[in-house]
Amino acid sequence: MKLHPAATRLLRRRLGPGVVRTDAPSLDAASFDGMKIPFPPEAVIFPRTREDLGEVLKLANERRVPVTVRGRGTSLTGSAAPARGGWVVDLLGWNRVRIDREAGLAQVEAGARVADIHRAAEERGWFYPPDPSSKEYCTIGGNIACNAGGMRGGKYGVTRDFVLALKGFLPTGEFVQWGTPTRKFAAGFNLRDLWIGSEGMLGIVTDATLKLIPKPAARWTLLASFSNEAAAFRAVRALFVERIQPSICEFLDRYSVVCAERATGATVFEGQPGRPVVLLEIAGSASEVREQKPLVIAWARRHASAHRAARSPAEAESLWEVRRKCSGAMFELGDSKLNEDVVVPMSQYVTFARFLDRLRRDSGLAIPTFGHLGDGNVHVNIMYHGADRGECRAAEKAVGMLMKTVVELGGAISGEHGIGLAKTPFLKVQHSAAQIGAMQAVKKALDPRGILNPGKMFEPFHVWKHKRLAIRLPWDHK
Amino acid sequence: MKLHPAATRLLRRRLGPGVVRTDAPSLDAASFDGMKIPFPPEAVIFPRTREDLGEVLKLANERRVPVTVRGRGTSLTGSAAPARGGWVVDLLGWNRVRIDREAGLAQVEAGARVADIHRAAEERGWFYPPDPSSKEYCTIGGNIACNAGGMRGGKYGVTRDFVLALKGFLPTGEFVQWGTPTRKFAAGFNLRDLWIGSEGMLGIVTDATLKLIPKPAARWTLLASFSNEAAAFRAVRALFVERIQPSICEFLDRYSVVCAERATGATVFEGQPGRPVVLLEIAGSASEVREQKPLVIAWARRHASAHRAARSPAEAESLWEVRRKCSGAMFELGDSKLNEDVVVPMSQYVTFARFLDRLRRDSGLAIPTFGHLGDGNVHVNIMYHGADRGECRAAEKAVGMLMKTVVELGGAISGEHGIGLAKTPFLKVQHSAAQIGAMQAVKKALDPRGILNPGKMFEPFHVWKHKRLAIRLPWDHK
Repeated sequence: MKLHPAATRLLRRRLGPGVVRTDAPSLDAASFDGMKIPFPPEAVIFPRTREDLGEVLKLANERRVPVTVRGRGTSLTGSAAPARGGWVVDLLGWNRVRIDREAGLAQVEAGARVADIHRAAEERGWFYPPDPSSKEYCTIGGNIACNAGGMRGGKYGVTRDFVLALKGFLPTGEFVQWGTPTRKFAAGFNLRDLWIGSEGMLGIVTDATLKLIPKPAARWTLLASFSNEAAAFRAVRALFVERIQPSICEFLDRYSVVCAERATGATVFEGQPGRPVVLLEIAGSASEVREQKPLVIAWARRHASAHRAARSPAEAESLWEVRRKCSGAMFELGDSKLNEDVVVPMSQYVTFARFLDRLRRDSGLAIPTFGHLGDGNVHVNIMYHGADRGECRAAEKAVGMLMKTVVELGGAISGEHGIGLAKTPFLKVQHSAAQIGAMQAVKKALDPRGILNPGKMFEPFHVWKHKRLAIRLPWDHK
Repeated sequence: MKLHPAATRLLRRRLGPGVVRTDAPSLDAASFDGMKIPFPPEAVIFPRTREDLGEVLKLANERRVPVTVRGRGTSLTGSAAPARGGWVVDLLGWNRVRIDREAGLAQVEAGARVADIHRAAEERGWFYPPDPSSKEYCTIGGNIACNAGGMRGGKYGVTRDFVLALKGFLPTGEFVQWGTPTRKFAAGFNLRDLWIGSEGMLGIVTDATLKLIPKPAARWTLLASFSNEAAAFRAVRALFVERIQPSICEFLDRYSVVCAERATGATVFEGQPGRPVVLLEIAGSASEVREQKPLVIAWARRHASAHRAARSPAEAESLWEVRRKCSGAMFELGDSKLNEDVVVPMSQYVTFARFLDRLRRDSGLAIPTFGHLGDGNVHVNIMYHGADRGECRAAEKAVGMLMKTVVELGGAISGEHGIGLAKTPFLKVQHSAAQIGAMQAVKKALDPRGILNPGKMFEPFHVWKHKRLAIRLPWDHK
């Protein structure tokens, strides 16, 4: 890896040692993200102002120093890890949140925590729907970088659907803004949305204007269990045919349910142990929720083997507890997990359930699966023991089969985590050579010296050849 | 203008004279769009298959023949006119519409009429919100090209917010697809949204997957009049602070109202002649609409000088008639109109009303204004007589002042029409040199030979120097 000691010294002289840090603890902390494979940077930069950041980029571009931007580093794909060394720019301190209560907009800085945006909006009667499970930790900048989603994507959409305008920097250090803080904009090429989901490879976001929706006044939760996964999938399709759009439609297969039951020592659904469940939330105005409740209960009577509606917020909370517990509980089945956030079209749900059964049989691995059925974003958790060579090989093979299958079914290899390093071997499964060529041409056009987050997206990376840090991060599922 | 007779002959030989037409009526019909300034093409191509279209592009790219794609040609900015000649590709015949009633998706071809998509979706209980006023004529391909909006942008969003996946061609003739027919996708750079709004300059869309929402079961319309424009704007802001999100919030200033009154011979609002009005529509489930009605009426009592709720769909229809009549009626005030679809942030509405008063005074022109207040997209209609040199100069100056002002107020020079040729002189008002440079770099990367819709967006074009055709198009406001 090429080092840039002279450039680093020059930057440190210009901006000061408080801004440009090279001490071991700072470098260590910035060397990895939620993927837990470390890459040492040469400096971690905490810019105080836009001018600082412009200066960092101008020098980096001039001297060809890799620049990787990070917020809280919750990415599961390595997209926030400095794969080619160089400088890490830490924007966690840029965390202002301001709500425009007339226009229903949030003006936020890149380092603002997503849950803080939720709270600020809700205090003023507005609502920001995207809710990645790491929302108490992750930043809006990171959410924009990977176009994060969450449980409410089916009804409300994902991060991209709520970004009206971005401000930030080109890799040359030029300040730009894409879009205006208005709900319409049709003036020039849409580089705003090109930046969203570009994982810090085309520009650096410093500020965003987010669109909010009126806060739903009421919510209602129902838990339903099914005799098998295919029955659950068929039922959900029937629900959508009736044009009932739940705000949340979470699915847990029988393996996830068994995990949760082992972890809590209690049956998820009394009298229905070890059966797949669907957790529905209806949200909207009080009258809208009142209107939909009987329709949903009638649906559950027709399709579910059992169902239970929450009679109070506390009871709803206890139902949601199941969903939150299952992910951590999976580590009973293996010390390592590949959490693949694939997307499957609704028409292919049942076919996909059959594929997963085959995959379990062929790989010999436990593959508990849960996910957001409103948008087809299914989290397939391939569990294995890191010290067991055979299981590692089986897991590697299984993930390849999974990616190939979701694309054949018309779906996507990632719905919300992005590519980063972890999914680079599968970009070709999703995209043709012409498509990848077009993406690379755009990268070359906007970052001709390739300084922004190099090593990601296009260069195949093999996670299997790297050792992961044995640490527990605050946002790891418990 | 460079001609390409040999390439045209070769293409005609390959695809046949039915596909590649060079007769005068075909060339004439393809020479202009809703801007009515003609540019003669060398051939009009009606591809039968994807293979045809791939072949057209490969040859065009090889021989550097300009290619402009057109649907119905309703664009008001010249974006569908072949400004540099060459070949026009007509996709009006590619008009298939298929609804996926489970997943709430529409699979459409580029030439499908927007109103046909509305009808197909609504027949199956789903709803496609974008509704440009030319919806009975314009195609979804054109809507995607300029990111069209309409009256419902505030609550529901614009075309971009409903496009999940695109298929089409790079200018090299390579077939590509961006995104999958799913509500989540985070795999690779987002060229889907870069294409949307790129006005046919980065690729050619042949197919789109659109996201639908459940069809609102109920609607309710209220007309309110105000003592002046600033009062109307203040009232609308107050409505949004209360988190009431009307599906439509149309504003007509006193000048538009007077036009409508002259055209119809009736007072828009009995007892309130010549006063600005706001037309609100509340839409949603029956209970949601029932819940919001009293809130809206209470708001109208507090803020409006008079209000009237529609007691039946027929009465609602008669209220909407006003809105539809005003645009055509403006031609009483001048034979020429600059319809500028600017966008203003909600916080600046009142300031903007004052600016318009000044602009009327300073220019001496009639400038009736109406628009979509849910999203700040205000249509400023600068009226003048084309034969009056003084008025032409005043209009040209007024549009310049308008563009400068909306950008100073934090708004946009176009909310839904795009840049095309008509707004090229103002791209620099909206965007910095760095921003335009980045857009041009992207253009160069994806269309290195510059064959797709050349002459648009970046090269200043002066509409004043060109004569418009004196024709009436079917979608011209009556």
